[in-house]
Amino acid sequence: MTGLFLSFEGIDGSGKSTQARRLASHLEDLGRDVVLTREPGGSPGAEEIRRLVLEGNPDRWSAETELLLFTAARRDHLERLIRPAVARGAVVISDRFADSTRVYQGVTRGDLRGTVDALHDAIIGVEPDRTFLIDIDPEVGLHRALARRGQEERFESFGVEMQQQMRSAFLDLAEQSPERFVVIDGNRDADSIARDVIAALP
Amino acid sequence: MTGLFLSFEGIDGSGKSTQARRLASHLEDLGRDVVLTREPGGSPGAEEIRRLVLEGNPDRWSAETELLLFTAARRDHLERLIRPAVARGAVVISDRFADSTRVYQGVTRGDLRGTVDALHDAIIGVEPDRTFLIDIDPEVGLHRALARRGQEERFESFGVEMQQQMRSAFLDLAEQSPERFVVIDGNRDADSIARDVIAALP
Repeated sequence: MTGLFLSFEGIDGSGKSTQARRLASHLEDLGRDVVLTREPGGSPGAEEIRRLVLEGNPDRWSAETELLLFTAARRDHLERLIRPAVARGAVVISDRFADSTRVYQGVTRGDLRGTVDALHDAIIGVEPDRTFLIDIDPEVGLHRALARRGQEERFESFGVEMQQQMRSAFLDLAEQSPERFVVIDGNRDADSIARDVIAALP
Repeated sequence: MTGLFLSFEGIDGSGKSTQARRLASHLEDLGRDVVLTREPGGSPGAEEIRRLVLEGNPDRWSAETELLLFTAARRDHLERLIRPAVARGAVVISDRFADSTRVYQGVTRGDLRGTVDALHDAIIGVEPDRTFLIDIDPEVGLHRALARRGQEERFESFGVEMQQQMRSAFLDLAEQSPERFVVIDGNRDADSIARDVIAALP
């Protein structure tokens, strides 16, 4: 069985985590070896870095330092979890990958898109075989995200205008790499979305 | 008073930390505002990253991940400690800076010199005003380093051959940037070395 690396992207409350889990179940039911993971984090080392970045005062790291720490976490995740799993023939499904960094650190947090790209090229150099962008109305996303607001609210502590900006940034990325991205309308019931995801598997 | 950024470099046991302290005392006696610091670490955030890298199993991070973490620490050190201190007119003396990364991660740990340079250009982009390379016979350095072997022995856990390789790498860097580096013979008594350091201040 050929290994496969899939990612789910989208703004907060888009339902991408739910859809990642649903796809994992579906593929496991078909007998595939599935590894469901997420970023930031995903491997023991990357989870430690995630805690270092997300716990404590949100201002204690500059946008640049945060970008380096998240890239370190991604490198660990890639080396220790994603690559070995794909090599043994598994399907790796990651809730967020490099596109989230392009949007968050590249556009909305630090305007660091050039640095994000330079780091990705120097250190990561890999893209998923397919990326599902679950696209929703930011108003809907924000309400969903606020409804389940918990401890780690760094990624959800943005207003509607910021969500709108992120949505546009994700759609721009999808337009730039149409061979990798599938944009799925997330303003519908979870079953319809899951069907579209399965239909768009590579 | 114009701020100044100085670094001390050299292989383990070269006496660079002693000389950094001596120079700090000398400049304080002259009434200068002096900030003595070290890498990896030097600012609260950078010290946290240092602990993350140096504690635990030495193999838990790959050379690439370690490089990203040390670069994140350097960025924090630069933003939070070095730059503000130089801006207010202080003399910052750092025990190790980017040259140590060029030698350790660039040459002996990961053969990552190209990546080290790319990261430095993208994220750090600053060199000290003067770098004192305390150059010693690796046999001497290794004996000194082993004599004070403590908890954090990551940087001292190399044999003589490795120390020889690092010494060459440091001397190569000095040759490439003669306007910044001063190479000082460290195989002598501390007083003579300290005098040479003071004579070579910018």
